[in-house]
Amino acid sequence: MTSSAEAAPGAPVRRGRPGYDRDRVLEVAVQLFNEQGYDATSVADLAQRLGLTKSALYHHFASKEELLSVALDQALGGLEAVLAEPAAQRGAALDRLRHVIRSATDVLVSQLPSVTLLLRVRGNSPVEQSALERRRLFDQRVTRLVAEAQREGDVRSDVDAAVVSRLIFGMINSVVEWYRPGGPVDGDRLGHDILTVALDGLRTGGDALTRADRRPSAP
Amino acid sequence: MTSSAEAAPGAPVRRGRPGYDRDRVLEVAVQLFNEQGYDATSVADLAQRLGLTKSALYHHFASKEELLSVALDQALGGLEAVLAEPAAQRGAALDRLRHVIRSATDVLVSQLPSVTLLLRVRGNSPVEQSALERRRLFDQRVTRLVAEAQREGDVRSDVDAAVVSRLIFGMINSVVEWYRPGGPVDGDRLGHDILTVALDGLRTGGDALTRADRRPSAP
Repeated sequence: MTSSAEAAPGAPVRRGRPGYDRDRVLEVAVQLFNEQGYDATSVADLAQRLGLTKSALYHHFASKEELLSVALDQALGGLEAVLAEPAAQRGAALDRLRHVIRSATDVLVSQLPSVTLLLRVRGNSPVEQSALERRRLFDQRVTRLVAEAQREGDVRSDVDAAVVSRLIFGMINSVVEWYRPGGPVDGDRLGHDILTVALDGLRTGGDALTRADRRPSAP
Repeated sequence: MTSSAEAAPGAPVRRGRPGYDRDRVLEVAVQLFNEQGYDATSVADLAQRLGLTKSALYHHFASKEELLSVALDQALGGLEAVLAEPAAQRGAALDRLRHVIRSATDVLVSQLPSVTLLLRVRGNSPVEQSALERRRLFDQRVTRLVAEAQREGDVRSDVDAAVVSRLIFGMINSVVEWYRPGGPVDGDRLGHDILTVALDGLRTGGDALTRADRRPSAP
Protein backbone atom coordinates (compact mmCIF):
# COMPACT_ATOMS: atom_id res chain seq x y z
CA MET A 1 0.00 0.00 0.00
CA THR A 2 1.46 3.34 -0.97
CA SER A 3 0.78 6.51 0.89
CA SER A 4 0.94 10.18 0.04
CA ALA A 5 2.79 10.68 3.33
CA GLU A 6 5.75 8.56 2.21
CA ALA A 7 8.23 11.27 1.35
CA ALA A 8 9.98 10.95 -2.01
CA PRO A 9 13.80 11.15 -1.94
CA GLY A 10 14.79 14.79 -1.76
CA ALA A 11 11.32 15.87 -0.56
CA PRO A 12 11.28 18.58 2.09
CA VAL A 13 11.69 17.29 5.64
CA ARG A 14 8.30 17.07 7.35
CA ARG A 15 7.77 18.52 10.80
CA GLY A 16 7.67 16.25 13.85
CA ARG A 17 9.23 12.80 14.13
CA PRO A 18 10.54 11.53 10.79
CA GLY A 19 7.73 9.79 8.90
CA TYR A 20 5.30 10.26 11.75
CA ASP A 21 3.85 13.71 11.70
CA ARG A 22 0.31 14.32 12.87
CA ASP A 23 -1.20 13.84 9.39
CA ARG A 24 0.50 10.49 8.91
CA VAL A 25 -0.64 9.24 12.34
CA LEU A 26 -4.18 10.29 11.48
CA GLU A 27 -4.00 8.59 8.08
CA VAL A 28 -2.85 5.28 9.54
CA ALA A 29 -5.41 5.49 12.35
CA VAL A 30 -8.32 6.04 9.92
CA GLN A 31 -7.09 3.14 7.79
CA LEU A 32 -7.00 0.87 10.84
CA PHE A 33 -10.43 2.05 12.09
CA ASN A 34 -11.87 1.26 8.65
CA GLU A 35 -10.21 -2.17 8.57
CA GLN A 36 -11.20 -3.48 11.97
CA GLY A 37 -13.76 -1.00 13.32
CA TYR A 38 -13.21 1.98 15.61
CA ASP A 39 -14.54 0.28 18.74
CA ALA A 40 -12.39 -2.82 18.14
CA THR A 41 -9.18 -0.78 17.69
CA SER A 42 -7.08 -0.02 20.77
CA VAL A 43 -4.39 2.63 21.19
CA ALA A 44 -1.97 -0.31 21.50
CA ASP A 45 -3.10 -1.62 18.07
CA LEU A 46 -2.48 1.82 16.61
CA ALA A 47 0.95 2.20 18.20
CA GLN A 48 1.89 -1.24 16.91
CA ARG A 49 0.75 -0.45 13.35
CA LEU A 50 2.73 2.78 13.44
CA GLY A 51 5.77 1.19 15.06
CA LEU A 52 5.57 3.83 17.81
CA THR A 53 5.33 3.57 21.56
CA LYS A 54 1.99 4.56 23.05
CA SER A 55 3.62 7.63 24.60
CA ALA A 56 5.03 8.71 21.22
CA LEU A 57 1.49 8.36 19.85
CA TYR A 58 0.07 10.47 22.69
CA HIS A 59 2.60 13.15 21.65
CA HIS A 60 0.41 13.67 18.56
CA PHE A 61 -3.13 12.94 19.81
CA ALA A 62 -4.48 13.00 23.35
CA SER A 63 -6.75 9.99 22.79
CA LYS A 64 -8.25 7.57 20.31
CA GLU A 65 -11.39 9.71 20.46
CA GLU A 66 -9.44 12.79 19.37
CA LEU A 67 -8.26 10.87 16.28
CA LEU A 68 -11.87 9.97 15.50
CA SER A 69 -13.03 13.52 16.09
CA VAL A 70 -10.38 15.05 13.79
CA ALA A 71 -11.05 12.48 11.04
CA LEU A 72 -14.83 12.98 11.15
CA ASP A 73 -14.37 16.75 11.18
CA GLN A 74 -12.23 16.45 8.04
CA ALA A 75 -14.96 14.55 6.18
CA LEU A 76 -17.83 16.71 7.45
CA GLY A 77 -15.88 19.92 6.95
CA GLY A 78 -15.26 18.95 3.32
CA LEU A 79 -18.97 18.33 2.72
CA GLU A 80 -20.09 21.47 4.59
CA ALA A 81 -17.60 23.57 2.61
CA VAL A 82 -19.35 22.45 -0.59
CA LEU A 83 -22.61 23.98 0.64
CA ALA A 84 -20.82 27.23 1.49
CA GLU A 85 -19.31 27.70 -1.98
CA PRO A 86 -20.77 30.51 -4.12
CA ALA A 87 -22.00 27.99 -6.73
CA ALA A 88 -24.10 26.35 -3.99
CA GLN A 89 -25.39 29.67 -2.70
CA ARG A 90 -26.42 31.64 -5.77
CA GLY A 91 -28.41 30.91 -8.92
CA ALA A 92 -31.18 28.49 -9.86
CA ALA A 93 -31.70 25.75 -7.26
CA LEU A 94 -31.16 23.04 -9.89
CA ASP A 95 -27.73 24.49 -10.76
CA ARG A 96 -26.83 24.69 -7.07
CA LEU A 97 -27.99 21.10 -6.59
CA ARG A 98 -25.86 20.01 -9.55
CA HIS A 99 -22.85 21.70 -7.96
CA VAL A 100 -23.49 20.06 -4.58
CA ILE A 101 -23.86 16.56 -6.07
CA ARG A 102 -20.75 16.88 -8.20
CA SER A 103 -18.59 18.48 -5.49
CA ALA A 104 -19.75 16.07 -2.78
CA THR A 105 -18.66 13.23 -5.07
CA ASP A 106 -15.26 14.92 -5.42
CA VAL A 107 -14.96 15.18 -1.61
CA LEU A 108 -15.76 11.49 -1.29
CA VAL A 109 -13.17 10.53 -3.89
CA SER A 110 -10.44 12.79 -2.50
CA GLN A 111 -11.14 11.95 1.17
CA LEU A 112 -12.27 8.37 0.75
CA PRO A 113 -10.90 7.00 4.08
CA SER A 114 -12.35 9.71 6.34
CA VAL A 115 -15.72 9.70 4.52
CA THR A 116 -15.80 5.89 4.81
CA LEU A 117 -15.23 6.25 8.56
CA LEU A 118 -17.97 8.89 8.78
CA LEU A 119 -20.48 6.62 7.04
CA ARG A 120 -19.85 3.84 9.57
CA VAL A 121 -20.50 6.02 12.62
CA ARG A 122 -23.45 4.73 14.63
CA GLY A 123 -23.63 7.23 17.50
CA ASN A 124 -21.84 5.21 20.18
CA SER A 125 -20.25 8.27 21.85
CA PRO A 126 -20.73 12.07 22.05
CA VAL A 127 -18.17 12.52 19.22
CA GLU A 128 -20.16 10.13 17.02
CA GLN A 129 -23.49 11.69 18.01
CA SER A 130 -22.19 15.12 17.05
CA ALA A 131 -21.05 13.77 13.66
CA LEU A 132 -24.49 12.22 13.07
CA GLU A 133 -26.12 15.54 13.95
CA ARG A 134 -23.91 17.35 11.40
CA ARG A 135 -24.86 14.72 8.79
CA ARG A 136 -28.54 15.33 9.56
CA LEU A 137 -28.10 19.09 9.11
CA PHE A 138 -26.30 18.51 5.80
CA ASP A 139 -29.14 16.23 4.61
CA GLN A 140 -31.73 18.84 5.62
CA ARG A 141 -29.97 21.53 3.60
CA VAL A 142 -29.86 19.26 0.54
CA THR A 143 -33.55 18.46 1.01
CA ARG A 144 -34.35 22.19 1.11
CA LEU A 145 -32.40 22.65 -2.12
CA VAL A 146 -34.36 19.86 -3.84
CA ALA A 147 -37.65 21.37 -2.60
CA GLU A 148 -36.60 24.79 -3.92
CA ALA A 149 -35.77 23.29 -7.34
CA GLN A 150 -39.22 21.65 -7.29
CA ARG A 151 -40.85 25.06 -6.62
CA GLU A 152 -38.82 26.54 -9.47
CA GLY A 153 -40.20 23.82 -11.77
CA ASP A 154 -36.82 22.26 -12.58
CA VAL A 155 -37.17 19.13 -10.44
CA ARG A 156 -40.15 16.84 -10.85
CA SER A 157 -42.89 17.33 -8.29
CA ASP A 158 -43.96 13.66 -8.09
CA VAL A 159 -41.06 12.71 -5.80
CA ASP A 160 -40.59 13.43 -2.09
CA ALA A 161 -37.73 15.92 -1.60
CA ALA A 162 -36.48 14.26 1.61
CA VAL A 163 -36.65 10.75 0.13
CA VAL A 164 -34.84 11.60 -3.09
CA SER A 165 -32.17 13.60 -1.21
CA ARG A 166 -31.45 10.48 0.83
CA LEU A 167 -31.48 8.34 -2.30
CA ILE A 168 -29.04 10.60 -4.18
CA PHE A 169 -26.66 10.74 -1.23
CA GLY A 170 -27.18 7.03 -0.64
CA MET A 171 -25.99 6.52 -4.21
CA ILE A 172 -22.99 8.82 -3.74
CA ASN A 173 -22.05 7.27 -0.40
CA SER A 174 -22.36 3.71 -1.71
CA VAL A 175 -19.27 4.40 -3.77
CA VAL A 176 -17.07 3.89 -0.67
CA GLU A 177 -17.95 0.18 -0.91
CA TRP A 178 -16.17 -0.36 -4.23
CA TYR A 179 -14.36 2.74 -5.54
CA ARG A 180 -10.57 2.61 -5.24
CA PRO A 181 -8.27 5.45 -6.39
CA GLY A 182 -6.16 4.23 -9.30
CA GLY A 183 -8.70 1.47 -10.05
CA PRO A 184 -10.47 0.89 -13.37
CA VAL A 185 -13.07 3.65 -12.79
CA ASP A 186 -11.66 7.17 -12.53
CA GLY A 187 -13.11 10.02 -10.50
CA ASP A 188 -14.32 11.94 -13.56
CA ARG A 189 -16.26 8.96 -14.94
CA LEU A 190 -17.78 8.46 -11.49
CA GLY A 191 -18.72 12.15 -11.11
CA HIS A 192 -20.27 12.17 -14.57
CA ASP A 193 -22.28 8.99 -14.08
CA ILE A 194 -23.57 10.00 -10.63
CA LEU A 195 -24.71 13.38 -11.91
CA THR A 196 -26.27 11.80 -14.99
CA VAL A 197 -28.27 9.22 -13.03
CA ALA A 198 -29.30 11.74 -10.36
CA LEU A 199 -30.52 14.45 -12.71
CA ASP A 200 -31.38 12.73 -15.99
CA GLY A 201 -31.81 9.05 -15.14
CA LEU A 202 -30.76 6.11 -17.28
CA ARG A 203 -33.48 6.40 -19.88
CA THR A 204 -32.83 8.15 -23.13
CA GLY A 205 -35.13 10.99 -24.02
CA GLY A 206 -37.19 11.72 -20.94
CA ASP A 207 -40.25 10.08 -19.49
CA ALA A 208 -42.89 12.00 -21.42
CA LEU A 209 -41.48 10.84 -24.74
CA THR A 210 -41.80 7.55 -26.57
CA ARG A 211 -38.89 6.38 -28.72
CA ALA A 212 -40.67 7.55 -31.87
CA ASP A 213 -41.02 11.04 -30.35
CA ARG A 214 -37.27 11.25 -30.00
CA ARG A 215 -36.58 11.23 -33.72
CA PRO A 216 -35.16 14.61 -34.73
CA SER A 217 -37.99 16.69 -36.11
CA ALA A 218 -37.77 18.43 -39.47
CA PRO A 219 -36.72 22.06 -39.18
CA MET B 1 -40.46 -3.64 19.47
CA THR B 2 -43.17 -5.76 17.90
CA SER B 3 -42.56 -8.85 15.85
CA SER B 4 -44.53 -10.75 13.25
CA ALA B 5 -43.71 -13.94 15.16
CA GLU B 6 -45.68 -12.85 18.23
CA ALA B 7 -48.80 -14.95 17.85
CA ALA B 8 -52.12 -13.16 18.23
CA PRO B 9 -54.61 -14.70 20.69
CA GLY B 10 -56.37 -17.53 18.95
CA ALA B 11 -53.70 -17.83 16.25
CA PRO B 12 -52.79 -21.39 15.22
CA VAL B 13 -50.18 -23.05 17.44
CA ARG B 14 -46.75 -22.86 15.79
CA ARG B 15 -44.59 -25.96 15.50
CA GLY B 16 -41.62 -26.53 17.86
CA ARG B 17 -41.19 -24.95 21.27
CA PRO B 18 -43.88 -22.38 21.99
CA GLY B 19 -42.74 -19.01 20.61
CA TYR B 20 -39.41 -20.40 19.50
CA ASP B 21 -39.72 -22.14 16.20
CA ARG B 22 -36.86 -22.06 13.72
CA ASP B 23 -38.11 -18.89 11.99
CA ARG B 24 -38.35 -16.98 15.25
CA VAL B 25 -34.85 -18.06 16.33
CA LEU B 26 -33.54 -16.90 12.95
CA GLU B 27 -35.37 -13.58 13.20
CA VAL B 28 -33.95 -12.80 16.64
CA ALA B 29 -30.46 -13.91 15.57
CA VAL B 30 -30.46 -11.63 12.51
CA GLN B 31 -31.68 -8.73 14.66
CA LEU B 32 -28.85 -9.31 17.14
CA PHE B 33 -26.23 -9.70 14.38
CA ASN B 34 -27.37 -6.38 12.91
CA GLU B 35 -27.28 -4.67 16.31
CA GLN B 36 -23.86 -5.75 17.50
CA GLY B 37 -22.17 -7.36 14.50
CA TYR B 38 -22.01 -11.03 13.55
CA ASP B 39 -18.42 -11.54 14.70
CA ALA B 40 -19.11 -9.89 18.05
CA THR B 41 -22.19 -12.05 18.75
CA SER B 42 -21.70 -15.34 20.59
CA VAL B 43 -24.08 -18.30 20.77
CA ALA B 44 -24.38 -17.45 24.49
CA ASP B 45 -25.54 -13.89 23.58
CA LEU B 46 -28.13 -15.39 21.27
CA ALA B 47 -29.37 -17.92 23.83
CA GLN B 48 -29.65 -15.12 26.39
CA ARG B 49 -31.63 -12.86 24.04
CA LEU B 50 -33.99 -15.73 23.25
CA GLY B 51 -34.25 -16.86 26.86
CA LEU B 52 -33.18 -20.34 25.78
CA THR B 53 -30.38 -22.60 26.88
CA LYS B 54 -27.56 -23.09 24.38
CA SER B 55 -28.63 -26.70 23.88
CA ALA B 56 -32.21 -25.64 23.12
CA LEU B 57 -30.78 -23.23 20.56
CA TYR B 58 -28.68 -26.01 19.00
CA HIS B 59 -31.94 -27.97 18.63
CA HIS B 60 -32.83 -25.47 15.87
CA PHE B 61 -29.46 -24.58 14.34
CA ALA B 62 -26.18 -26.51 14.41
CA SER B 63 -24.05 -23.36 14.72
CA LYS B 64 -23.93 -19.59 14.59
CA GLU B 65 -22.58 -19.96 11.05
CA GLU B 66 -25.66 -21.96 10.01
CA LEU B 67 -27.84 -19.05 11.18
CA LEU B 68 -25.76 -16.65 9.10
CA SER B 69 -25.87 -18.96 6.10
CA VAL B 70 -29.68 -19.37 6.21
CA ALA B 71 -30.22 -15.61 6.68
CA LEU B 72 -27.91 -14.67 3.79
CA ASP B 73 -29.51 -17.32 1.60
CA GLN B 74 -32.92 -15.79 2.35
CA ALA B 75 -31.78 -12.33 1.20
CA LEU B 76 -29.84 -13.58 -1.83
CA GLY B 77 -32.56 -16.05 -2.79
CA GLY B 78 -35.09 -13.21 -2.79
CA LEU B 79 -32.93 -11.09 -5.09
CA GLU B 80 -32.05 -13.99 -7.40
CA ALA B 81 -35.73 -14.93 -7.67
CA VAL B 82 -36.41 -11.45 -9.06
CA LEU B 83 -34.04 -12.11 -11.96
CA ALA B 84 -35.74 -15.45 -12.65
CA GLU B 85 -39.25 -13.96 -12.95
CA PRO B 86 -40.78 -13.86 -16.46
CA ALA B 87 -40.89 -10.04 -16.37
CA ALA B 88 -37.10 -10.05 -15.91
CA GLN B 89 -36.57 -12.64 -18.64
CA ARG B 90 -38.71 -11.50 -21.54
CA GLY B 91 -39.34 -8.23 -23.34
CA ALA B 92 -37.38 -5.03 -23.90
CA ALA B 93 -34.30 -4.78 -21.67
CA LEU B 94 -35.49 -1.44 -20.25
CA ASP B 95 -38.78 -3.03 -19.14
CA ARG B 96 -36.88 -5.93 -17.58
CA LEU B 97 -34.55 -3.50 -15.82
CA ARG B 98 -37.55 -1.56 -14.50
CA HIS B 99 -38.99 -4.80 -13.10
CA VAL B 100 -35.67 -5.75 -11.46
CA ILE B 101 -35.22 -2.32 -9.81
CA ARG B 102 -38.78 -2.22 -8.51
CA SER B 103 -38.85 -5.84 -7.33
CA ALA B 104 -35.40 -5.66 -5.71
CA THR B 105 -36.68 -2.66 -3.74
CA ASP B 106 -39.67 -4.73 -2.64
CA VAL B 107 -37.34 -7.55 -1.50
CA LEU B 108 -35.30 -5.06 0.50
CA VAL B 109 -38.40 -3.61 2.17
CA SER B 110 -39.98 -7.00 2.93
CA GLN B 111 -36.73 -8.65 4.08
CA LEU B 112 -35.02 -5.62 5.59
CA PRO B 113 -33.14 -7.43 8.41
CA SER B 114 -31.63 -10.20 6.27
CA VAL B 115 -30.72 -7.77 3.44
CA THR B 116 -29.12 -5.45 6.02
CA LEU B 117 -27.06 -8.39 7.27
CA LEU B 118 -26.08 -9.30 3.69
CA LEU B 119 -24.87 -5.77 2.98
CA ARG B 120 -22.55 -5.86 6.01
CA VAL B 121 -20.83 -9.10 5.01
CA ARG B 122 -17.12 -8.55 4.43
CA GLY B 123 -15.90 -12.04 3.46
CA ASN B 124 -14.50 -13.16 6.83
CA SER B 125 -15.46 -16.83 6.35
CA PRO B 126 -16.38 -19.28 3.56
CA VAL B 127 -20.09 -18.58 4.17
CA GLU B 128 -19.48 -14.84 3.76
CA GLN B 129 -17.24 -15.35 0.73
CA SER B 130 -19.92 -17.43 -0.95
CA ALA B 131 -22.49 -14.67 -0.27
CA LEU B 132 -20.16 -12.04 -1.75
CA GLU B 133 -19.71 -14.23 -4.84
CA ARG B 134 -23.49 -14.50 -5.28
CA ARG B 135 -23.75 -10.70 -4.93
CA ARG B 136 -21.08 -10.31 -7.64
CA LEU B 137 -23.00 -12.62 -9.99
CA PHE B 138 -26.21 -10.68 -9.33
CA ASP B 139 -24.41 -7.39 -10.10
CA GLN B 140 -22.99 -8.86 -13.32
CA ARG B 141 -26.46 -9.88 -14.49
CA VAL B 142 -27.82 -6.39 -13.79
CA THR B 143 -24.86 -4.88 -15.65
CA ARG B 144 -25.61 -7.10 -18.67
CA LEU B 145 -29.23 -5.95 -18.57
CA VAL B 146 -28.16 -2.27 -18.56
CA ALA B 147 -25.76 -2.92 -21.46
CA GLU B 148 -28.53 -4.66 -23.39
CA ALA B 149 -30.87 -1.69 -22.85
CA GLN B 150 -28.06 0.57 -24.09
CA ARG B 151 -27.77 -1.52 -27.28
CA GLU B 152 -31.54 -1.31 -27.72
CA GLY B 153 -31.28 2.48 -27.53
CA ASP B 154 -33.44 2.85 -24.41
CA VAL B 155 -30.64 3.59 -21.92
CA ARG B 156 -28.21 6.43 -22.57
CA SER B 157 -24.89 5.36 -24.03
CA ASP B 158 -22.77 8.00 -22.26
CA VAL B 159 -22.71 6.09 -18.96
CA ASP B 160 -20.73 2.98 -18.02
CA ALA B 161 -23.11 0.01 -17.58
CA ALA B 162 -21.11 -1.48 -14.68
CA VAL B 163 -20.77 1.86 -12.88
CA VAL B 164 -24.44 2.80 -13.15
CA SER B 165 -25.55 -0.70 -12.11
CA ARG B 166 -23.49 -0.28 -8.93
CA LEU B 167 -24.88 3.24 -8.44
CA ILE B 168 -28.50 2.14 -8.82
CA PHE B 169 -28.05 -0.76 -6.42
CA GLY B 170 -26.01 1.48 -4.12
CA MET B 171 -29.04 3.77 -4.02
CA ILE B 172 -31.44 0.87 -3.37
CA ASN B 173 -29.19 -0.67 -0.72
CA SER B 174 -28.63 2.65 1.07
CA VAL B 175 -32.26 2.47 2.13
CA VAL B 176 -31.37 -0.03 4.88
CA GLU B 177 -29.65 2.86 6.68
CA TRP B 178 -32.86 4.80 7.27
CA TYR B 179 -36.00 3.01 6.08
CA ARG B 180 -38.17 1.55 8.83
CA PRO B 181 -41.41 -0.35 8.19
CA GLY B 182 -44.32 1.65 9.59
CA GLY B 183 -42.24 4.85 9.47
CA PRO B 184 -43.18 8.07 7.67
CA VAL B 185 -42.09 6.80 4.22
CA ASP B 186 -44.07 3.83 2.91
CA GLY B 187 -42.75 1.12 0.62
CA ASP B 188 -44.77 2.32 -2.38
CA ARG B 189 -43.42 5.88 -2.12
CA LEU B 190 -39.92 4.44 -1.83
CA GLY B 191 -40.36 2.10 -4.83
CA HIS B 192 -41.77 4.95 -6.92
CA ASP B 193 -39.03 7.42 -6.03
CA ILE B 194 -36.19 4.92 -6.57
CA LEU B 195 -37.54 3.95 -9.98
CA THR B 196 -38.08 7.59 -10.91
CA VAL B 197 -34.56 8.69 -9.97
CA ALA B 198 -32.96 5.62 -11.58
CA LEU B 199 -34.77 5.82 -14.91
CA ASP B 200 -35.84 9.44 -15.31
CA GLY B 201 -33.69 11.45 -12.91
CA LEU B 202 -34.78 14.42 -10.84
CA ARG B 203 -34.95 16.91 -13.67
CA THR B 204 -38.21 17.71 -15.31
CA GLY B 205 -38.42 17.20 -19.05
CA GLY B 206 -35.25 15.37 -19.97
CA ASP B 207 -31.76 16.58 -20.72
CA ALA B 208 -32.23 17.30 -24.42
CA LEU B 209 -35.02 19.75 -23.69
CA THR B 210 -34.94 23.27 -22.34
CA ARG B 211 -37.82 24.44 -20.16
CA ALA B 212 -39.37 26.32 -23.07
CA ASP B 213 -39.36 23.11 -25.12
CA ARG B 214 -41.51 21.45 -22.51
CA ARG B 215 -44.52 23.68 -23.11
CA PRO B 216 -47.32 21.62 -24.59
CA SER B 217 -47.26 22.07 -28.35
CA ALA B 218 -50.36 23.06 -30.31
CA PRO B 219 -52.14 20.06 -31.87
